[in-house]
Amino acid sequence: MAIQVGDFVYVYHSEQMKYLVQVPAKGQFSTHRGHIEFGDIVGRELGDEIRTHMGFRFHLLKPVLADLAMKVSRQTTIVYPKDAGVLLMQSLVQPGMRVIETGSGSGALSIILASIVRPEGRVYSYERRPEFSALARQNVKRYGLEEFCEFFVADPEHGGFGQTEVDTVMLDVPEPWSLLPAAHAALRGGFPLAAIVPTVEQVRRTTSAMELTGFGRIRVQEILERHMFVRASGIRPADRMVAHTVYIITGQKVVPPAQATEEPSAPEE
Amino acid sequence: MAIQVGDFVYVYHSEQMKYLVQVPAKGQFSTHRGHIEFGDIVGRELGDEIRTHMGFRFHLLKPVLADLAMKVSRQTTIVYPKDAGVLLMQSLVQPGMRVIETGSGSGALSIILASIVRPEGRVYSYERRPEFSALARQNVKRYGLEEFCEFFVADPEHGGFGQTEVDTVMLDVPEPWSLLPAAHAALRGGFPLAAIVPTVEQVRRTTSAMELTGFGRIRVQEILERHMFVRASGIRPADRMVAHTVYIITGQKVVPPAQATEEPSAPEE
Amino acid sequence: MAIQVGDFVYVYHSEQMKYLVQVPAKGQFSTHRGHIEFGDIVGRELGDEIRTHMGFRFHLLKPVLADLAMKVSRQTTIVYPKDAGVLLMQSLVQPGMRVIETGSGSGALSIILASIVRPEGRVYSYERRPEFSALARQNVKRYGLEEFCEFFVADPEHGGFGQTEVDTVMLDVPEPWSLLPAAHAALRGGFPLAAIVPTVEQVRRTTSAMELTGFGRIRVQEILERHMFVRASGIRPADRMVAHTVYIITGQKVVPPAQATEEPSAPEE
Amino acid sequence: MAIQVGDFVYVYHSEQMKYLVQVPAKGQFSTHRGHIEFGDIVGRELGDEIRTHMGFRFHLLKPVLADLAMKVSRQTTIVYPKDAGVLLMQSLVQPGMRVIETGSGSGALSIILASIVRPEGRVYSYERRPEFSALARQNVKRYGLEEFCEFFVADPEHGGFGQTEVDTVMLDVPEPWSLLPAAHAALRGGFPLAAIVPTVEQVRRTTSAMELTGFGRIRVQEILERHMFVRASGIRPADRMVAHTVYIITGQKVVPPAQATEEPSAPEE
Repeated sequence: MAIQVGDFVYVYHSEQMKYLVQVPAKGQFSTHRGHIEFGDIVGRELGDEIRTHMGFRFHLLKPVLADLAMKVSRQTTIVYPKDAGVLLMQSLVQPGMRVIETGSGSGALSIILASIVRPEGRVYSYERRPEFSALARQNVKRYGLEEFCEFFVADPEHGGFGQTEVDTVMLDVPEPWSLLPAAHAALRGGFPLAAIVPTVEQVRRTTSAMELTGFGRIRVQEILERHMFVRASGIRPADRMVAHTVYIITGQKVVPPAQATEEPSAPEE
Repeated sequence: MAIQVGDFVYVYHSEQMKYLVQVPAKGQFSTHRGHIEFGDIVGRELGDEIRTHMGFRFHLLKPVLADLAMKVSRQTTIVYPKDAGVLLMQSLVQPGMRVIETGSGSGALSIILASIVRPEGRVYSYERRPEFSALARQNVKRYGLEEFCEFFVADPEHGGFGQTEVDTVMLDVPEPWSLLPAAHAALRGGFPLAAIVPTVEQVRRTTSAMELTGFGRIRVQEILERHMFVRASGIRPADRMVAHTVYIITGQKVVPPAQATEEPSAPEE
Repeated sequence: MAIQVGDFVYVYHSEQMKYLVQVPAKGQFSTHRGHIEFGDIVGRELGDEIRTHMGFRFHLLKPVLADLAMKVSRQTTIVYPKDAGVLLMQSLVQPGMRVIETGSGSGALSIILASIVRPEGRVYSYERRPEFSALARQNVKRYGLEEFCEFFVADPEHGGFGQTEVDTVMLDVPEPWSLLPAAHAALRGGFPLAAIVPTVEQVRRTTSAMELTGFGRIRVQEILERHMFVRASGIRPADRMVAHTVYIITGQKVVPPAQATEEPSAPEE
Repeated sequence: MAIQVGDFVYVYHSEQMKYLVQVPAKGQFSTHRGHIEFGDIVGRELGDEIRTHMGFRFHLLKPVLADLAMKVSRQTTIVYPKDAGVLLMQSLVQPGMRVIETGSGSGALSIILASIVRPEGRVYSYERRPEFSALARQNVKRYGLEEFCEFFVADPEHGGFGQTEVDTVMLDVPEPWSLLPAAHAALRGGFPLAAIVPTVEQVRRTTSAMELTGFGRIRVQEILERHMFVRASGIRPADRMVAHTVYIITGQKVVPPAQATEEPSAPEE
């Protein structure tokens, strides 16, 4: 399938030299090893090799889902693919589903969620700071996903989410405990919520508040991603790695403890 | 939304005591703490508390994506959610996409893929052993995903995949290198392939064959998932963990080296 | 060097079948694959092969330092070799040095410390519970290290350690913060203290108390040990691993903040 | 104990700003926050606070064992404390023991070993390249450990180690398999050998050669060290970590397979 103007193409040499571009009709862009004319990309096939004016080789690749999120124009910390993968697996983000996320941040997670709930589902993305909401919207729009994502500049702690019976709530805010009543009100019974936080104190406070608000099956995990170098000289793990991003907290909406039957449960051994 | 006959419900007390059931019209099932009448589940709301005849409490939860895969009737090793999450992020499995997987195994990955490519996309699932293909089909059908997944009893090494221009190929077989020519033929240019293998020797052989067959951006990673215990006595990581499942190899289809331009690339420093 | 009566010998087949024995003059011991006469071990060379009456092979090995600690008769959690190694590297446990440890527990750490400070150094091992002190003493004596290790049944929180100018203090107790004043009084200025605790809350409380008591260079780490399987079928990490034992907190005695010069330090950027 | 001329002192502000100095009679040294007169250090107590001419505070600390090794003048990769700790625990490096190491490298491991086998034990350190042997000797001498460590410029693959009945052999060379016959000849029966190598291929080749040469109880592990940040804002793991240094291979000398009894061992299930 020939590359057309407006397509997103990953001009790739290595993890250290790669460029995600949306191909314009004309002009050129500069790599560290010479420049490439966009006119030379249009009409080529994905997977083809292309060369800079200095003869340096790149491949023309299709960006995968993680690439779209990692390559957003960003002014905030963004969710890492290793963590986003777990969020997808431990929740209900599927075609046709309605998903709340807050904060919008730079829109990295919005892009991932919108890519999967489309075309019938919706992402409702809340952010208190107007400038970030605008940035997230712009990043989502860049990839043509704007019709699947609604942005709200709002503080759900006070006004709630304005949605009911949603399939999943994702919280990426410094104080997730403050949004739990609003999240509980918005979620379908038995359906999942996920929160990501960097520190252990936030884990403690979030999980305690989840229990009190009415969430069960509360689990906390972290994901370590280790890359392997495969070289002629031998295979070995990479020297350095990201050691920590966030703790991932998941739970599912249940009846609040105060409304549950009052007799004590049968004692456990 | 009231629970109906035929719904999948996670009857959950803790990670050590949980039951994924498809609710029948009548009968009961036994837990380690007494039995529950299915008639008592029908008509209840998801998120509600339910008790065994001994008074032991469970919650009625919606199974999340990982639960469906982990709870299949299995006769093979299955892909772990921590690894499946990375497979989704590092490939192109999205609504409407056409994805090849082999082997079908117990259908755990088929279920994950079909849940996301639906309703317009398709999973083409290949397996050499008829009994496993049948098991995978049965597991996929159990969740109502059979219309999004086509099963083939075939050896793609010799006959190829019989598909072209697919968006992603996933290989979960002992000798992924043997299927690379067929995978290359089936994939769209620049699109992703992923293979999972347990040993370092398989990593070496697969990545070498990928380079020769025509795959670029070859990366190898492994994912470690660590659970945290949040107790009144304190927060700490779980005592034991799964230390290894598979190495995840990803790459994207490029023109084979033999067909690429012949002059050497400009030397790298 | 021929094995004599009274020697410690590791009768080893595999990590799943190994026996640390102190060779008696006569008798036999049972393995899962038949019995071995002690009379057949005496006079053999370390490194030799020996067989059970059923013909099953074992090797006669010298126990390494970790083996002595791991094979004590135990009634408590013991320090793992992976953690003990860091304790040795991040402190001053060397021949001739005087080291405090508390609690004595089962004596596993006492054995490691005594093995290295001997013959001129001393381990002062404190324990509040007389029965554990006796057990630790017995385990230390079993390996002939009793002359390098003094045991005290005492509560150092109230009575102090009764030592001054020691080279290292090691705390393996549930509330290390309670012993910091005593540890500070016993240590040489600038010398190291190490504490091991399982939970994050203990880390917080211990490190805060260390700062107030007069410890600098406070660091917290944890050690993950991953085993590799090397098989004919391939090399891969072990399936399961110990995911957590303790956090290791280290610091070095400095003048208490209250006694330090009062002007604020030059501001850091 | 007052600091004297010639003492090693760790002038410490933080892990990012620390200086290991051997105190001269006069002069000064520069930190990033102003200079310190050595005359102001002499006569102070370890643990005291000291200030630069700009008023910036440092502590005067005693270097721990890991510090001596990490702060050598180096021209090679050096063994990390996390790995050295395991080497000490899984071998027999204790006061009075005789230990072989090769290559000498920059002397970091020599310093650790000599610190522990002294005063009666000896480290025999072999290195093929005269300039590294000289560097290692100089680093060992700097800490006053030269009488416990003998350096040899030699290639043990061809000439052997010239020692017998040693208690431990440590191999830190690119091709440890080439030195196994010499190591086997030098070791006491049943005693330990350890080798450290960065790649999986070296693990394979070394462990295979160990089996053939006559080593049993062969184990392979790697150590991951994770630091925790304890801040007012919360506790969390450090963002980045060293993901890989070496695989640690350990084994113990046994009779070579060819000399072992010839009948097959009883079959294992």
